[in-house]
Amino acid sequence: MTTRPDLEALDRADPLAPFRERFALPRGQLYFVGNSLGAMPKASAERMRRVVDQEWSQDLVRSWNRHGWVDLPQRLGDKIGRLIGAAPGETVACDSTSVNLFKALAMAVKLRPGRRVIVSDADNFPTDLYMAQGLSGWLGDGVELRTVALDRLDSALGEDVAVVSLSHVNYRTGELFDMAAITRKVHDCGALMLWDLAHSAGALPIELAACGADFAVGCGYKYFNGGPGAPAWIHVAERLHAQVRSPLTGWFGHERPFAFEGHYAPAAGIASLLVGTPPILSMSALEASVDLMLEAPMAQIREKSLRLSAAFIELVEQHCAGHGLQLVTPREPGRRGSQVCLRHAQAWPVMQALIARGVIGDVRAPDILRFGFTPLYLRYTDVWDAVSALAEVLRSGEWQREEFQLRAKVT
Amino acid sequence: MTTRPDLEALDRADPLAPFRERFALPRGQLYFVGNSLGAMPKASAERMRRVVDQEWSQDLVRSWNRHGWVDLPQRLGDKIGRLIGAAPGETVACDSTSVNLFKALAMAVKLRPGRRVIVSDADNFPTDLYMAQGLSGWLGDGVELRTVALDRLDSALGEDVAVVSLSHVNYRTGELFDMAAITRKVHDCGALMLWDLAHSAGALPIELAACGADFAVGCGYKYFNGGPGAPAWIHVAERLHAQVRSPLTGWFGHERPFAFEGHYAPAAGIASLLVGTPPILSMSALEASVDLMLEAPMAQIREKSLRLSAAFIELVEQHCAGHGLQLVTPREPGRRGSQVCLRHAQAWPVMQALIARGVIGDVRAPDILRFGFTPLYLRYTDVWDAVSALAEVLRSGEWQREEFQLRAKVT
Repeated sequence: MTTRPDLEALDRADPLAPFRERFALPRGQLYFVGNSLGAMPKASAERMRRVVDQEWSQDLVRSWNRHGWVDLPQRLGDKIGRLIGAAPGETVACDSTSVNLFKALAMAVKLRPGRRVIVSDADNFPTDLYMAQGLSGWLGDGVELRTVALDRLDSALGEDVAVVSLSHVNYRTGELFDMAAITRKVHDCGALMLWDLAHSAGALPIELAACGADFAVGCGYKYFNGGPGAPAWIHVAERLHAQVRSPLTGWFGHERPFAFEGHYAPAAGIASLLVGTPPILSMSALEASVDLMLEAPMAQIREKSLRLSAAFIELVEQHCAGHGLQLVTPREPGRRGSQVCLRHAQAWPVMQALIARGVIGDVRAPDILRFGFTPLYLRYTDVWDAVSALAEVLRSGEWQREEFQLRAKVT
Repeated sequence: MTTRPDLEALDRADPLAPFRERFALPRGQLYFVGNSLGAMPKASAERMRRVVDQEWSQDLVRSWNRHGWVDLPQRLGDKIGRLIGAAPGETVACDSTSVNLFKALAMAVKLRPGRRVIVSDADNFPTDLYMAQGLSGWLGDGVELRTVALDRLDSALGEDVAVVSLSHVNYRTGELFDMAAITRKVHDCGALMLWDLAHSAGALPIELAACGADFAVGCGYKYFNGGPGAPAWIHVAERLHAQVRSPLTGWFGHERPFAFEGHYAPAAGIASLLVGTPPILSMSALEASVDLMLEAPMAQIREKSLRLSAAFIELVEQHCAGHGLQLVTPREPGRRGSQVCLRHAQAWPVMQALIARGVIGDVRAPDILRFGFTPLYLRYTDVWDAVSALAEVLRSGEWQREEFQLRAKVT
């Protein structure tokens, strides 16, 4: 039986413990939603002040040169690349994950002209499915989305498949998939592989290049701690650069944007995936937080993440048994991302009652309680305190209070 | 002959003069590039501090409900709509101007199935041309871009034209076009009209609804003062809402994004044009600056803008004659946006020498000096002082110094 002193000992020995100081955490609360919106690095707030009060206010347009605004998407892209096992020049920060999914799917479909099928996990994050549906419905030339339960992926693969689009970690269950094995299987059928790393990048070691992935996208606001709606990023394997052609040919993707020429000529390499003027305020906040991520060894992040989630699972089973909770996330460490999901018939009011006790998790409809584990700012003892609060909410039945039944617009 | 005391008198009588206090302007400089990147409203800096230090840092995910993050794109879109003569529910803040051009062009082409031509001004802003080229090249089903000198627009119109895409003010010459007359002409040939208002919105009264425009896009970082790379916006006339279908079908454009359903169902109205998670930091800064714009009567902004630019033209002709400057911008007030462009064979070094004297303008290749007029933070006397400095740069020949020849990455 794990005790609170056991966890205190783990905190004392934790090599990542000093990182907690680098975040401005919500006072009096334990925050388990870093998998949805990461906590704020103090350096991001400082960076925002500098960008606003000096770069924008004082240096204005000259900041494009003087403060490197014009290179920010590529500079930041390369930093993100180091966190996902990509080579320099393969990743660029831009747009939203959804828009980047569109680019990647569109490019992939063009690269496999005889094949018209996009395969995806039926339980993929909705926007991944929606962007593929939009593309196929709008193209209307036979491109179609085929969804399948991921454990039956083989049944969906065939010579008609242009691209397989999957999330590395399922947003609802926290299950982690085998990137190398799936990519190999997809390539064996002649299709291209697109990974959505929104729920894994920054949380665990990723080796995109070693796995041979073709495309990847991800967001900046979850484990990268880039701030609400932070810019996303897109990765294209270097071997495809000469062949791909994005449908979104904006001026920042031009070879010479400031020559203001009348004809589009794509920039060499990943820069051709840029579209409009980059959002400097949001992107600067993300750069500051990615710089912080780069200071922490990813292997240590993963090790602590798995220990945190394992402790959570163990403690929930010890202290919350008999209250209708069901573990959704795989128990095997190798199949677990950095979140733990529990099913409960009254997930919504249970979570509201837990939040009222200062433990912040979230809910995914209809019945999933989600807890994200972010090793840079969570302590082992936080896990103990969170499970204690959850046990108390369930034991007392306080979640049945009327105030906890009211649904919010964003769940 | 206009004298400096004449301009001092105009400043004293200026009803917009109090707005200057509301901006944090660059110290010791006169800033004439608000048509490229607007100066920083003090309220934007305050808003950023609140969003960062309270909403992100302390309230985190709960801010989606508590601080109205989830409604920000529509709330801000409606505010922008008031500045461009649109009805509520017709405008939404999202993505970049380039991405919004793609959506509008793609929707327009779908609405006119028998017609395959996109018409644009050969001298339109490059990204407007590039996005159309990308769309047509990528679709490969006969959709093509036809460019024409705008004074010969009639020659390009015909029964094969699906949509005409034009900028309201030319970015290089400052010429303002007649929105009502052109829209009528385009509709007469059965095509749809897309206006890019990047260089006019916030600078002069616009009546999109009264002109019958179908689509419009624009950016947030020029006359709206929303900050570098601020989010853009898109407008679709309400009468088209039931028919249009964006190819970019992301989760924020879904009818019930937080139900996490597997099939895309577009939100009613303009919200279906949203794609990914909105960039809250950048969008909050833009909302603060748009709120400021809404306090100033647009007719007063236009009146002062024209007086500023008229004074600039007059003073340049008085004080800079014989130095090779040529006025590019139309002299007639009704054909002038809120910038004045001068051609000079040595535009680049002349501008660098002027900047060294603390007067900030910019250059557009190959030979255009640009000066933007932003009535909320420029004084009439600033125009006098800028022209005096320009005259001195030209008279002294100091622009010939070696230090002013070096080109920067961003011009």
